[in-house]
Amino acid sequence: MHSYLEPHEWKLVERGFEAENLERSEALFSIGNGHMGQRANFEEDYSGPTLRGSYVAGVYYPDKTRVGWWKNGYPEYFAKVLNSVNWIGIRVGVHGENLDLNRVEVSDFVRELDFRDALLSRQAVVRMHNGSRLSLSAKRFVSMARPEIGAIEYRITALDRSLNLELEPYLDFDVRNKDSNYDEGFWEGLDAQVGSQKAVLSARTRKLDFRVAAAFRFDLTLDGKPLTVYPETVQQSMYVSNRIQAEVPAGKTLILTKYVSVLSSLDHAPETLLKQADERASEARRVGFEALLEEHKDRWAQKWELGDIRIEGDVKAQQGIRYSIFQLHQTYTGEDERLNIGPKGFTGEKYGGSTYWDTEAYCLPFYLGTAEPKVARQLLTYRFKHLTKAIENAAKLGFHRGAALYPMVTMNGEECHNEWEITFEEIHRNGAVAFAVYNYLRHTQDSAYLLEGGIEVLVGIARFWAQRVHWSEKRGAFVMHGVTGPNEYENNVNNNWYTSYIACWCLHYAGSAIDIASGLDTRKTQDILEKLGFDAAGERGRWKHICAHLWLPEDAEGGIFIQNEGFLDKELIPAAQLPPAERPINQHWSWDRILRSCYIKQADVLQGVYLFEEDFDRGQMERNFDFYEPLTVHESSLSPCVHSILAARIGRIDKAYELYLRTARLDLDDYNHEVAEGLHITSMAGSWMSVVQGFGGMRWEGADMILEPALPSAWKAYAFHLKFRSAVLEVSVTQAGVEVRHRSGGAVAFRLFDRAQTLETGGVLHHSFT
Amino acid sequence: MHSYLEPHEWKLVERGFEAENLERSEALFSIGNGHMGQRANFEEDYSGPTLRGSYVAGVYYPDKTRVGWWKNGYPEYFAKVLNSVNWIGIRVGVHGENLDLNRVEVSDFVRELDFRDALLSRQAVVRMHNGSRLSLSAKRFVSMARPEIGAIEYRITALDRSLNLELEPYLDFDVRNKDSNYDEGFWEGLDAQVGSQKAVLSARTRKLDFRVAAAFRFDLTLDGKPLTVYPETVQQSMYVSNRIQAEVPAGKTLILTKYVSVLSSLDHAPETLLKQADERASEARRVGFEALLEEHKDRWAQKWELGDIRIEGDVKAQQGIRYSIFQLHQTYTGEDERLNIGPKGFTGEKYGGSTYWDTEAYCLPFYLGTAEPKVARQLLTYRFKHLTKAIENAAKLGFHRGAALYPMVTMNGEECHNEWEITFEEIHRNGAVAFAVYNYLRHTQDSAYLLEGGIEVLVGIARFWAQRVHWSEKRGAFVMHGVTGPNEYENNVNNNWYTSYIACWCLHYAGSAIDIASGLDTRKTQDILEKLGFDAAGERGRWKHICAHLWLPEDAEGGIFIQNEGFLDKELIPAAQLPPAERPINQHWSWDRILRSCYIKQADVLQGVYLFEEDFDRGQMERNFDFYEPLTVHESSLSPCVHSILAARIGRIDKAYELYLRTARLDLDDYNHEVAEGLHITSMAGSWMSVVQGFGGMRWEGADMILEPALPSAWKAYAFHLKFRSAVLEVSVTQAGVEVRHRSGGAVAFRLFDRAQTLETGGVLHHSFT
Repeated sequence: MHSYLEPHEWKLVERGFEAENLERSEALFSIGNGHMGQRANFEEDYSGPTLRGSYVAGVYYPDKTRVGWWKNGYPEYFAKVLNSVNWIGIRVGVHGENLDLNRVEVSDFVRELDFRDALLSRQAVVRMHNGSRLSLSAKRFVSMARPEIGAIEYRITALDRSLNLELEPYLDFDVRNKDSNYDEGFWEGLDAQVGSQKAVLSARTRKLDFRVAAAFRFDLTLDGKPLTVYPETVQQSMYVSNRIQAEVPAGKTLILTKYVSVLSSLDHAPETLLKQADERASEARRVGFEALLEEHKDRWAQKWELGDIRIEGDVKAQQGIRYSIFQLHQTYTGEDERLNIGPKGFTGEKYGGSTYWDTEAYCLPFYLGTAEPKVARQLLTYRFKHLTKAIENAAKLGFHRGAALYPMVTMNGEECHNEWEITFEEIHRNGAVAFAVYNYLRHTQDSAYLLEGGIEVLVGIARFWAQRVHWSEKRGAFVMHGVTGPNEYENNVNNNWYTSYIACWCLHYAGSAIDIASGLDTRKTQDILEKLGFDAAGERGRWKHICAHLWLPEDAEGGIFIQNEGFLDKELIPAAQLPPAERPINQHWSWDRILRSCYIKQADVLQGVYLFEEDFDRGQMERNFDFYEPLTVHESSLSPCVHSILAARIGRIDKAYELYLRTARLDLDDYNHEVAEGLHITSMAGSWMSVVQGFGGMRWEGADMILEPALPSAWKAYAFHLKFRSAVLEVSVTQAGVEVRHRSGGAVAFRLFDRAQTLETGGVLHHSFT
Repeated sequence: MHSYLEPHEWKLVERGFEAENLERSEALFSIGNGHMGQRANFEEDYSGPTLRGSYVAGVYYPDKTRVGWWKNGYPEYFAKVLNSVNWIGIRVGVHGENLDLNRVEVSDFVRELDFRDALLSRQAVVRMHNGSRLSLSAKRFVSMARPEIGAIEYRITALDRSLNLELEPYLDFDVRNKDSNYDEGFWEGLDAQVGSQKAVLSARTRKLDFRVAAAFRFDLTLDGKPLTVYPETVQQSMYVSNRIQAEVPAGKTLILTKYVSVLSSLDHAPETLLKQADERASEARRVGFEALLEEHKDRWAQKWELGDIRIEGDVKAQQGIRYSIFQLHQTYTGEDERLNIGPKGFTGEKYGGSTYWDTEAYCLPFYLGTAEPKVARQLLTYRFKHLTKAIENAAKLGFHRGAALYPMVTMNGEECHNEWEITFEEIHRNGAVAFAVYNYLRHTQDSAYLLEGGIEVLVGIARFWAQRVHWSEKRGAFVMHGVTGPNEYENNVNNNWYTSYIACWCLHYAGSAIDIASGLDTRKTQDILEKLGFDAAGERGRWKHICAHLWLPEDAEGGIFIQNEGFLDKELIPAAQLPPAERPINQHWSWDRILRSCYIKQADVLQGVYLFEEDFDRGQMERNFDFYEPLTVHESSLSPCVHSILAARIGRIDKAYELYLRTARLDLDDYNHEVAEGLHITSMAGSWMSVVQGFGGMRWEGADMILEPALPSAWKAYAFHLKFRSAVLEVSVTQAGVEVRHRSGGAVAFRLFDRAQTLETGGVLHHSFT
C-alpha cells in the first residue's frame, strides 16, 4: 500500500510535497464535469516527471494501429482520447526566476480535493533560489453547472519582502499524447487572438477535424483591490498568453482569477466556435469565481442527495466509496448521448479513453441507482447510435443479415482493438449490451425504450449469436467455438459457459422484448421489425431451437458449471498456494504459463451466476463460488466486486468485506502501482455495487426488486441512497437492523427481505436483525 | 498461372522485357553460393519498381520488434537478414544519357539462368532517347569454388554508330531493408579506398557490429584488346567507384569484367578484412573470368552428379524439380555450421532470412539424399550450438532444469517471433529438431554424432516435453494444453495429436539414444549426462511414465486420430465445396472465421502419419488421409508435398501427382502471386521429397531403407540419384520397371520392394512392373 493520503470522510488530502508522488496525485486529484477533465497538474511550470493531461469529452484521434502480425478482420485504427489544450497554465516568475516546484524549496504543502463540491485546492510555502519567499494558494474547478467553464483562483502572498512578479496566464495547444503510436502530433493550430486580459485559441485534430477552442479572461487584485495592468501579449499559432508585471509588497496578496472556456465542435458550429468561446469566458468573468463556485456546488449537492453512501466506523472505507461515486459523476453526467465512460475517465491516456463493456456491466447499475433515469438511458442510446457500426464490425468477420457485434473497445462504434483473441473472440460483450437494456427496463419500467432503439439493438445482437453458434453432429447440440470469456487468461476456448449462457439469454430476451414492445404498440413494433427485414417465424423459431439445444458445459459430479471445455483437465491448485513473489502472475509469469494455468483473471462463470442469479439456487451459487473463487487471482480491477457481491449473497460477509476492500481503495492505495497512469473509473462503479448489491443485498426476482441488507462486522453502520423508479430511498443498516426511508418521489413497491412493501414519500420501514 | 518463362529442362529462360515481371524475375533468377546471394537486379541503374537485394550469409540485424499488445515472454528483437553491399553495380552513360531499362526502348531481351553452372546471363538491344543503339550482354555468377568471389562480364556493342560511353563500376553500402520495422538504416560506413581500376569499401552493422568488406578490380577490353583507361575515382563513406570514359566504334564491343570479393567478419578478423577483400578481388582478376567460371562449373557438376532428378515426358515437371534442387544448393552448402536455410534463402527479405523448423522437417532429407553427410551434419551442429539459447528460451517461459525449447524463428538461437499462439505454442518444432537427429543417424549410420552434441540436444528437448505436459486427474492421463500444431489455422488447442505424438516419440528416443551412445562409449556418455545433471533413473522413469500415459486423441468409431480436442465438433465440409472466389481463405476470410472453420492449412495429423509411417498400418494411413486431406486447403507451401507422399504411399498415384504439381512449380508459376518477395526455398525440398519419397517410394522400417517406386501416368520415365550412406544410387523408373544402379561409393544394403539387397559399385538391380 502506498497511502500517502490522509483518511478523510469527504476529501482527499495530501500533506507534504514528495515529487515521487506527483504523477499519482495528478491522477487522483483529477477534476472533471462530464464535458471536460483535467489532471491535477500545477498551473505553473513543473520540470520534473509529470503527465500533463486535459481532455475534452468526445474529442478523439484515430491513431494508426500497431500490430506485430496482421490478421484479417483487424481494424486499421485505434481511437484514443486526445490530450487537449492546456488551459490551466499560469507561468510565474519571481524576480526573473521561474516558479517550478521541482526546483525550489517547498514547505507546508497541502493539496485537497473536496468530494462535496469538486474543488481542488493547493497551498504551499516556497523559497526561491533567489531567496524570495512566498505563499502560494490555488483553487480550481470545472463547473458542473456550466460544463464548458473552468475557473482558477491563484494567490501569491509575498512573505518576507516585496516581490517583483511576472505572471503569464496562457493557453497552449502544442500538446502531445504520450501514448501516440508513432510519435505524431494530433493537433493543428487554427486561430489565435490576444488582447489585454483576454485570449482565445483554436485548433483542429488531424484526420477527423474535431475543433476545440479555448478562451480566457482574468482579473487581478492586490491586497483585495483590483489591479490595473498593461499586459504584454504573446500570440503564436498554438499558444496565446498575457504577461503581467506586478510588485507585491511584503505581507500582501496578489490574486489572479482565470476564467476559461473550452468548447468543441461537437457542440458548436465550427465557424462560431471562437466567438462562443470568447463570449463564455467573458460571461464567466462577469459572474465571478464565488458565484460560479456556488452554482457548481448546488449541482454537486443534488448528486450527493441522490446517491451518497455513508459508512460509520471505517473512515477509509467511507473515503473509498465516496471517492468512487465522486469520480464516476465527474466522468459522466448523461447529458450527451455521444459520450460514454472511458476506463480512465479524464485522468490519463491509457486504454484510449474508449468505451468497453465495463459501461454496461458495471457503470449502468451505478447510474441507475444514483441518477435520474435519463442518465442511464443515454448510455443505451449511445449503443443504439452505434448499431450500424456494430453490424459493420460483424460483417468484417463474415456475419451477415444484420448481425451486430458491439466492439470491445470503441470511440465511435468501430472496433479499435487488435488482439484476435479479444477483438474476435471476447464476444460476451455483446451480451452485456443486451443485458443493459433489460436491466434498465426492470429498474426504470421505461419499456417505451424498446420502441426507441431497444428492439433494433436486441435483434442485431440475437442475430449475431444465432450465426455464431454451429451445430455439432458429434454432440447433437449447438456449440460455440473460439471464444474468450471475461477471464482473459483463457483464450480461444470452446463453449465458454458464461458466453453461451448469456447468448442463450439474449436469444430468449430478444423474443420477449418483441412481445413486450408489441404489447405497447403493435403497429410501431411491426414497422421496426419490417425495417429490420425480420422473419418472425423463421428467426424466432431458430432462436428458440438454439436455446433449447445449446451446449452448456456442466460437471454433474461436482455440481458446477464448467468455465470452458478442458478447464477441468487443468491442474487445479488454489491461488492462495502461489508464492507471493509471483503475484500478480501477469507481471511474473509468461503468457504461456498463465494460459495453461487454472488461474482466473476475473469472474467468468461467476459473472454469469451474478447476472442471472435468480436462475440458480443457493447450492449452485455456493458450489460455483467455492470452486472458482479460490482459483481467481483478481488481476482485473473489475474482479473483486462481483465476488464480493456473491460472497455476501451466500452469507459470507467477512469474505465479502475482504473482497470489497480490494476494490474500494484500489486507486487510493495504488494496489497495482499504476495509478499515475490514471484512475480505474469503471471499476469504481463496482465498489458502489459491492455496497448496494452486496452488503445492501439489492437483487431481483423478475421485475421485483429485493433488499436484504447485512452489516459487515468492521462497520458500525452504513446507509445508502438508491434511486429506484420514481423514488429516492435511503437504506440505513445498523447492528440493530435495517431502516428504509422514502426520501422523495412517487410511491414504489419492492421487497424488504421476504415481505412485499410499498413506500410513499416520508414512509419508513424497519427490519430488525434480532 | 503466370508463366512468362519458357519451359526448359536445364534453364530458366525469360524472353522479352516486361517491366511488370521485373521483381518476379529478380527473385526467380537469383544466384547464390551459400556464402552470399544476389537477386537478379540489373548491373546498371533501374528507375522502375525493383527490390535490390544482396545478402551475406550469417550477417543479420536484430531489429526492434513491433507488437500490438505485449505478452510476457516475448522477445525484444526480430532478427532479419540484412540487405548488404550492392556489389554488382555498373552505372552506364551513353553520350551523357543514363542507361536505364525503364526509360529506353528494349528489344531482343533474353535472360537465362542455367542450373548446370549457375550462370546468369542477359542480353538486350537498346535504343537510347538520344537515338544511340547498343547491344548489351551481361553474365555473372557467384563462385561455388571461391565463396567470397563474384564475377561479372558486362559487354556493350555499339550498333549503328560509335558510342561515347561512361562506365562506373561501383560498390554501395547505402542500402536499406525494405522490411525494416522502424525505417532505420542498419549499416554504418567504415573504410573506403579507391585507386585506378580498384576499390574497397567496408561497413559495420549497428548493434551487433558485423563487418562486411567488398572490393573490386576490373578489366576493360575493346574489340578484344585490353583498353587502358585513367578512371576518375569517387570515394564516399558508403560508396566507391571508378568513372571511365570510352569511345566504342560502331560494330565494336567493349567488355568490362568486374571481379568482386565480399567478406565478412564471420570469417575474418575485423582488422584484416579490408586487406583480405582487396587481395581476393585482385587474385580473382589474376585468375580471370573464364577460369573462375570453369572451377565454379566443376563444383556444380559434382552437385548434380550426387543429386540430379531426371523426368521424361514432362518438361515443366523436369524444370520444376531441377530448379528446386538448384536453388537449394545455392542457398546452403553445409560448409559453415553457423548457417542455415532461410525460407527465402538469398532471394528476398521476407521471413527475415531466419531458421524455421522447415530445415529439419523438409530440408534435411534433401541434403541427406543429395550431398555428403557432413552437409546434413552441419545442420545438426547448428542446433547443438544453439542449445544454450534454446534453454534460455524455455526458461523465459517458466521451464527449468535444462529444458530446451528451440525457437520458431531464429538467427542466433534466440526466439524472434512474437505471436503468442506461435511463439509459445507451436512447439512441435522442438520435435522436428529431435527427429532430425534420428533421421540423420538412420540415413548415415553416423551414431558418433550422439556423443558430439546429439545427446545434449535430445535430453534438453525431452526435458521440455516432460515439463510441458501435466497430469489430468479428470482423465487419468497426461495432457498437453495450449498448443498450435503445424496447422496454424487452429490456435491454442489442447492435445494436438501430432504434437503429443512427437513429444512422446522424443521422450522415447532420448532414452534410446542414451543407450546407443553408451554402447559406443559408456564413459563419454556418462560424462555428458553428468554435465547435464541427468538423473538417469528419475528422468528416464518419468519419461517412460509420461509416454505410457499421454493422451492421444483418437476417434475409435472413425478409426482416425483427432487433430485436437474439439475438432470433431466442427462443421466438416470438404474444401472442394468452398466457392473458388473465397480461396485462398487466408486472403478472403477473417481470422475468426478461419479459426472456427474445419480447414487445415497444412499437414497436421498427416505430418505425424508421414514422419512415423512405420507405426501405422495401411488402413490407418488411408482413413486419416481420406478424412484430413479433403479438409486441407494447402495454404502453406509446405503442405502439398507431404500429402503427395502419403497419396503415393497408399497407391493414389494420380492424387500424388496432382499434389506434386502444386509444389514443384510453386514459384515458377507464381501460384500465390508473391514470388517477387522471394522464393520458397524450404518448400523446394518438399518437391524433392515428393519425387524420392513419394513416387520413388523411399521409406524406412527401423534402420532399413526401402525403395518402392511407382510411375505417375503423366511421365514416361524418371530417375533420381540418391546419396545413401557411402553410396550414390541411381534409381530409374520406366513403365517397364525399376532399375537401381550403384554409381559410386561403398557397398550398401537396402530393400527394393520386398527383397533385401546389397549393391556394390557398378551393381544393378531390376524390378519389373509386369
